[in-house]
Amino acid sequence: MEKQYVIGVDLGGTKISTALAELNGNILSENTIPTNAKYGEEAVLSRIIYAIERILEVTGKKVDEIKAIGIGSPGPLDSKKGVIIETPNIPFKNFQLVRPIEDRFEIPTYLENDANAAAIGEFMFGAGKNTRNMVYITVSTGIGAGAIVEGRIYRGNTCNALELGHSTILPDGPRCNCGNYGCLEVLSSGTAIARVANEHLKAGADSSLKNYEVVTSYEVFQEAKKGDKLSLDVLNKCLQYLGIGIANIITIMDPEVVVLGGGVSLAGDIVFDRVNKVVGERCFKVLRENCRVVPAALGKQSGVVGSVALAIMESLEDK
Amino acid sequence: MEKQYVIGVDLGGTKISTALAELNGNILSENTIPTNAKYGEEAVLSRIIYAIERILEVTGKKVDEIKAIGIGSPGPLDSKKGVIIETPNIPFKNFQLVRPIEDRFEIPTYLENDANAAAIGEFMFGAGKNTRNMVYITVSTGIGAGAIVEGRIYRGNTCNALELGHSTILPDGPRCNCGNYGCLEVLSSGTAIARVANEHLKAGADSSLKNYEVVTSYEVFQEAKKGDKLSLDVLNKCLQYLGIGIANIITIMDPEVVVLGGGVSLAGDIVFDRVNKVVGERCFKVLRENCRVVPAALGKQSGVVGSVALAIMESLEDK
Repeated sequence: MEKQYVIGVDLGGTKISTALAELNGNILSENTIPTNAKYGEEAVLSRIIYAIERILEVTGKKVDEIKAIGIGSPGPLDSKKGVIIETPNIPFKNFQLVRPIEDRFEIPTYLENDANAAAIGEFMFGAGKNTRNMVYITVSTGIGAGAIVEGRIYRGNTCNALELGHSTILPDGPRCNCGNYGCLEVLSSGTAIARVANEHLKAGADSSLKNYEVVTSYEVFQEAKKGDKLSLDVLNKCLQYLGIGIANIITIMDPEVVVLGGGVSLAGDIVFDRVNKVVGERCFKVLRENCRVVPAALGKQSGVVGSVALAIMESLEDK
Repeated sequence: MEKQYVIGVDLGGTKISTALAELNGNILSENTIPTNAKYGEEAVLSRIIYAIERILEVTGKKVDEIKAIGIGSPGPLDSKKGVIIETPNIPFKNFQLVRPIEDRFEIPTYLENDANAAAIGEFMFGAGKNTRNMVYITVSTGIGAGAIVEGRIYRGNTCNALELGHSTILPDGPRCNCGNYGCLEVLSSGTAIARVANEHLKAGADSSLKNYEVVTSYEVFQEAKKGDKLSLDVLNKCLQYLGIGIANIITIMDPEVVVLGGGVSLAGDIVFDRVNKVVGERCFKVLRENCRVVPAALGKQSGVVGSVALAIMESLEDK
């Protein structure tokens, strides 16, 4: 039977989103179920298998019509071996995720960290379409990234390349969760923006942010747009570091486009104007003139579209 | 006639080194002539052609026994087009270097920036042998770098990838020649080590470096090894930044090995001990445990062996 569909699974700490799509990326059906992470790794595996069974049933497709399954998951993981090494919010520990799914469905199954999967999604169906060399960066609670090099996902030796969020931008900066100091993530993630704003508020700074009970990066962006000086100062500083991180990745990887996704990027011009200014100041002319920094196109769909794209890309490469 | 040789040309500001080698890298003959840069770009081109003619004559090889010519040159350049965009010490300006050489000899000719050529040399015949993913960094007057990804040179979109020396390590650091502030190069090249030492001497610091009329990085390393406190402090700081630059490239590219060459690396353990300590502190465990930082193996031969290796690699890929 001709295999003309793929399945994408976006595995998260609280929910599993699954889609069945045509080979052009067109999604025919999608479902979302709770991960039930607290019941342990075998339970999560059963949930994934259940989600796949259900989407086959709903769409009336047969196992031998499916070309590949792509799974995007938090890492670190070993995509070559199909093993999740560890994740902060799901109970996997050196867990072989791919083999039992391949055994159950007899469909080639590919595992990739979620930032890489989202990068593939933006590359095939989003803001990176029609490029060959692209870097995707997601800035929300943390900072993740993935790169496409000559049309293929760039993994590195241990499958842990593009940990851009943990490159050092400020050697004597604040301590990051990873143990290092002055990582990009601890300087300019959404969490960092909120932390810096709250530190200033605690120290007695005057600001319209005082009117909120809880200040997250969302409130900082809102008040900055209304002209609040503290909010503007905080963003100015945090986004300068983000600009430096992006300038550094352009300097090292020389991509055609940097696609910026995640919650922070949704704030729009205020982010892109600042980042582009810093990139312009810090990059070689030939590099900055040939690389655009653009917003991601897939938004909240980036996870599940990324997993679908992963399945399509991998099954094409294996042919 | 079977093509079983290649020619490598290492183009520098003062001299041109040319070698004829077998396809296993074994060099049969080598010559070095002055670049005569002051006579202009056409004159330099004639010098290269002359060097190639002479090595063919000396070895008695015929043009149709040569599989490829590789040229390593300072950049920035466009290796896809065979054009040198600009170099600080040679008068090239958007100069088409490859075509006239191909026209003259009818041998496929490949141009690559010198750091990339040296990276290919170390990958094929030096400290990167038997790896698939390698980063080469040369630290001397400046800092250059090149990467091998899955056995191929990594160029990027504009052929200017791996400008690691101009990634930002210290956002408010000293101004670099490139116009940016706090680049790796301005913090930890040989030139930077000498500059920082001389600044301290000028400010009246006590040090055995006072006994030298001219203090370069060489003297700083010498006196550090004898225990001079100022020299040790200067190296400690400059090499910390080098370690951060290396930690960042490991975090982003996830290579199997980082090969460190150039004058500064010749100082040996004092460099590698410090760099490895910083990498250990700043990199994810899985990354640092799977990547070694090792000295380059080719030393002063890196330029010409790199050009030979470039010719071999490119001619194999084109088959």
